[in-house]
Amino acid sequence: MSEPAQTLDGWYSLHDFRAIDWTTWKMLPSEERAAAIQEYHQFLNKLNQTQEEEKGSHALYTIVGQKADIMLMILRETMEELNELETEFNKLRITEYMIPTFSYVSVVELSNYLPGGEDPYSNPHVIARLYPTLPKAKHVCFYPMDKRRQGNDNWYMLPMEDRKEMMRSHGMIGRQYAGKVKQVITGSVGFDDYEWGVTLFADDVLQFKKLVYEMRFDEVSARYGEFGAFYVGNLLEEERIATFLHVQ
Amino acid sequence: MSEPAQTLDGWYSLHDFRAIDWTTWKMLPSEERAAAIQEYHQFLNKLNQTQEEEKGSHALYTIVGQKADIMLMILRETMEELNELETEFNKLRITEYMIPTFSYVSVVELSNYLPGGEDPYSNPHVIARLYPTLPKAKHVCFYPMDKRRQGNDNWYMLPMEDRKEMMRSHGMIGRQYAGKVKQVITGSVGFDDYEWGVTLFADDVLQFKKLVYEMRFDEVSARYGEFGAFYVGNLLEEERIATFLHVQ
Amino acid sequence: MSEPAQTLDGWYSLHDFRAIDWTTWKMLPSEERAAAIQEYHQFLNKLNQTQEEEKGSHALYTIVGQKADIMLMILRETMEELNELETEFNKLRITEYMIPTFSYVSVVELSNYLPGGEDPYSNPHVIARLYPTLPKAKHVCFYPMDKRRQGNDNWYMLPMEDRKEMMRSHGMIGRQYAGKVKQVITGSVGFDDYEWGVTLFADDVLQFKKLVYEMRFDEVSARYGEFGAFYVGNLLEEERIATFLHVQ
Amino acid sequence: MSEPAQTLDGWYSLHDFRAIDWTTWKMLPSEERAAAIQEYHQFLNKLNQTQEEEKGSHALYTIVGQKADIMLMILRETMEELNELETEFNKLRITEYMIPTFSYVSVVELSNYLPGGEDPYSNPHVIARLYPTLPKAKHVCFYPMDKRRQGNDNWYMLPMEDRKEMMRSHGMIGRQYAGKVKQVITGSVGFDDYEWGVTLFADDVLQFKKLVYEMRFDEVSARYGEFGAFYVGNLLEEERIATFLHVQ
Amino acid sequence: MSEPAQTLDGWYSLHDFRAIDWTTWKMLPSEERAAAIQEYHQFLNKLNQTQEEEKGSHALYTIVGQKADIMLMILRETMEELNELETEFNKLRITEYMIPTFSYVSVVELSNYLPGGEDPYSNPHVIARLYPTLPKAKHVCFYPMDKRRQGNDNWYMLPMEDRKEMMRSHGMIGRQYAGKVKQVITGSVGFDDYEWGVTLFADDVLQFKKLVYEMRFDEVSARYGEFGAFYVGNLLEEERIATFLHVQ
Repeated sequence: MSEPAQTLDGWYSLHDFRAIDWTTWKMLPSEERAAAIQEYHQFLNKLNQTQEEEKGSHALYTIVGQKADIMLMILRETMEELNELETEFNKLRITEYMIPTFSYVSVVELSNYLPGGEDPYSNPHVIARLYPTLPKAKHVCFYPMDKRRQGNDNWYMLPMEDRKEMMRSHGMIGRQYAGKVKQVITGSVGFDDYEWGVTLFADDVLQFKKLVYEMRFDEVSARYGEFGAFYVGNLLEEERIATFLHVQ
Repeated sequence: MSEPAQTLDGWYSLHDFRAIDWTTWKMLPSEERAAAIQEYHQFLNKLNQTQEEEKGSHALYTIVGQKADIMLMILRETMEELNELETEFNKLRITEYMIPTFSYVSVVELSNYLPGGEDPYSNPHVIARLYPTLPKAKHVCFYPMDKRRQGNDNWYMLPMEDRKEMMRSHGMIGRQYAGKVKQVITGSVGFDDYEWGVTLFADDVLQFKKLVYEMRFDEVSARYGEFGAFYVGNLLEEERIATFLHVQ
Repeated sequence: MSEPAQTLDGWYSLHDFRAIDWTTWKMLPSEERAAAIQEYHQFLNKLNQTQEEEKGSHALYTIVGQKADIMLMILRETMEELNELETEFNKLRITEYMIPTFSYVSVVELSNYLPGGEDPYSNPHVIARLYPTLPKAKHVCFYPMDKRRQGNDNWYMLPMEDRKEMMRSHGMIGRQYAGKVKQVITGSVGFDDYEWGVTLFADDVLQFKKLVYEMRFDEVSARYGEFGAFYVGNLLEEERIATFLHVQ
Repeated sequence: MSEPAQTLDGWYSLHDFRAIDWTTWKMLPSEERAAAIQEYHQFLNKLNQTQEEEKGSHALYTIVGQKADIMLMILRETMEELNELETEFNKLRITEYMIPTFSYVSVVELSNYLPGGEDPYSNPHVIARLYPTLPKAKHVCFYPMDKRRQGNDNWYMLPMEDRKEMMRSHGMIGRQYAGKVKQVITGSVGFDDYEWGVTLFADDVLQFKKLVYEMRFDEVSARYGEFGAFYVGNLLEEERIATFLHVQ
Repeated sequence: MSEPAQTLDGWYSLHDFRAIDWTTWKMLPSEERAAAIQEYHQFLNKLNQTQEEEKGSHALYTIVGQKADIMLMILRETMEELNELETEFNKLRITEYMIPTFSYVSVVELSNYLPGGEDPYSNPHVIARLYPTLPKAKHVCFYPMDKRRQGNDNWYMLPMEDRKEMMRSHGMIGRQYAGKVKQVITGSVGFDDYEWGVTLFADDVLQFKKLVYEMRFDEVSARYGEFGAFYVGNLLEEERIATFLHVQ
């Protein structure tokens, strides 16, 4: 048995993607649409309050292309809270006009393929990354991924030292994008179909492509990365929601 | 031909996952919703009674994310009973407002990659594991899995001794989680699409991730494990059902 | 080119799996439901008559889990008859309340990886297996399968002698289950997506698991078997149909 | 770069598979059903006329199993004509009661892994095969396929000579079925998801199985063939359409 | 780590495929259909205006086969503009009668596996290719693709020199089709599920097949290409829209 990586785990995470059913939404009388939007804002206000209390965070983005129209990412202290918020969202009037297209359940994770010795939980930078306030960046990118276990390309059979060295080199690429791309890694082993979710935030959407493409030439991705579907989107500020949902 | 593993088989098992159709559920007048919930409780009472008589067991959980809203796992003495309960559930009023999303048919299984010699059926611990009363743990995790048969990584071509040794080491990891995670293995060869279902119960949901991730570095999983979809959820106590299903 | 196996081919076969749409079925007035059930019995009577005339056979089972609620397997002398019966079934009233979930088109097949010399068609045992009356066993198991053609595990590139030897050893496992499991192999090369369908009948459902699991350690399955979805079910005697379909 | 095969290309081809929505079809008053069938016959008459003028051809079959109920294969001189006929078919009344289940876009193709030297277009046999009148055979079989590009089994990396030799031997098998099975190969590289479509016609449906199975032992298929879904069906003569679509 | 390829990136791109729901479209009164078509023309006029201002481009094609009926490809300066146009399109009346079937998000890309030295952005030919006005060619072909990372066929592990040499030879094939096929490559790493989208334009639809098939024998495609679904279609001139959508 090869030595398992240790992880640090923070807030639980739910990514929820929905398509708008514009046809039935338009059938609703405009006052009822307004009421549904107002109720939706109340739900978001509640999320905002939790974020102000630093007991969680969330992010709301529109998604480009047909895979979804809207993504709500929620971070919370417990899996129960995620489930309750999901159920509350499912019961909203506006959600009757949304079609679930994809979701992802995970937990904010730092893996310590790191120089040992210190107690990571005593490190305020570590704490800030385990319980992050999600940025209001203009763009989001989400994709789930696995480490490959296939023939000679089996990540989980590699010695710890090799994995550590490859992850270090991998991290160096990420560091070149510091200030341009903020990355939130969430672990989903035992929670969802892939092993990790990667959520990237940037004000320049092209940086997602540059970062992911550059990493693909790195051995960790080139030999050992298996990627799920990619979602890209634009920030949906709350004051733009009414316009986004406005129909005649 | 390599020597087949022997299995001990207990109760038959059905995992049934459904999404709630909140939109149509809300359309139902509230008295009819109440009546539907009451009928659902009668169905669950019947299951409770069987459990008290130790002729079966069941567990009810809400599921996080869009893959399902609710999971009912049922154990019974015969495949016919499972089928009858499934049909009875399908005919309930409340089930008209649920969309089937996934199910799994299997049988509680112990594989005796074990030191031989004793008659396992004379062992009360074995009996307790073949006919288990499912715990009321706060969280559940379910996933189906296969042993890989691919190129040089072909579990079924390995000598019995090698499989036995690897399973022993694998079991040692599981044992470290004793008291934290309860594991129910069900075999589904000939019954459903994967070879096994794994159902984990824990009060600390993070233990699912730790256990599954640690095992993934073990050769049995690293080289020979093929995993299906993962489902994670929270206990739905019967007294919380009305609240869970309450809509305005 | 490696030497092709020769096959003996009997009756054409259609496996038809449907889920019941209980919600719309319940909406039907009870007299209309009764009339639909009666019409369904007339259809089944017609099948019974063909079976009595030994011009075909059929089997009706409920299926456990969400993949289907009911399976009708029909054997007939021609592909046209199968198509006509399928169309007749599609036009029944009760079929309006069924959702097609899976079907399989094939032909009863015996492959003669057998000691040569005799004319198999002069053998009454062979004839009985090519034109079988399906048993009224308590349980059914169905799965489609391929022989693998992948890298070094390519069945179709093996010399005839090797295939013959492996099939012989494979058949020996099957023979151990004689009296417990009746097996009907149907070939579907050129007819459906896999190369064979396997339909097993048994009074003890656990024998399906034991048989398929034991075979999986045999080289033919371990290295060369690719399996599709597995379906397991319980005999639906005609006198139980009304009860099965009864709703309030 | 290995030397590409040259192809001769004839008529463009559309295979269109639909399931009948019997439930809604039955809801239509019988006069309207009759009118819809009549309009369908007018559409088919137009196709017949083009066939008589030798500017195209078509074939209409019912399909066995749930993958589809009906297949219309159309050959035409241009991709625009196929698109227009498809749109015209989509606008028919009867098509409101059909559910699209699969389609395939390709062009009749001859590949000249043949002894060179002659101009194939001066050969009337070649012309007849590029612009074929589809036979009224009792049965049809359709499947799409690729040549494999996987590890050591990479068709496109083989020297021309090796491909030529293998295709020659492959063609010899086909020739043994002359008079029993008529084969129309259509190329779909750049047009649809697989590289070729294979459409077989025969009066004895068992010949499909024999031909495809025998070929599977040939190296071209055994090592290099990747197959999509298989469809099998029975000729739907125009005079049988009303009966096929008759409901009460 | 192998040296990453550098890319030049131009306009952002959305390919949007829809099927027409002819059944519900026919239910609409003809004046309302006319109004919906007129509103659609207004939307297209707006796109035309942006194209005239050289701030973007678009192309409208009908698609052959059931995968879609219509494809709108839009190029714009920002991801936000694409998202806004998509949302505007989703809110149109006519879009209520269209079913989303596929979409692709990417950015016009040139990869400089090219002789170095010059500043590509100072090159007007490069600029013209990064911000192209899409041609009014009679036919379109679209497919997404990846470079393979599998066992010994791992593009991303190859030295830059090898990749450069293979891409040069690959480009030579493309150059033989100059004047026959116009190719727009869009990169989608971090934006959508494949790494690239390939959009081909030609007046002779057969050139798509010839080009893609010839390239398949080239090592870059033969060993390293993984292809998604292929879509082929015919130009839908704006003056033909009313006819295309005309129903009785």
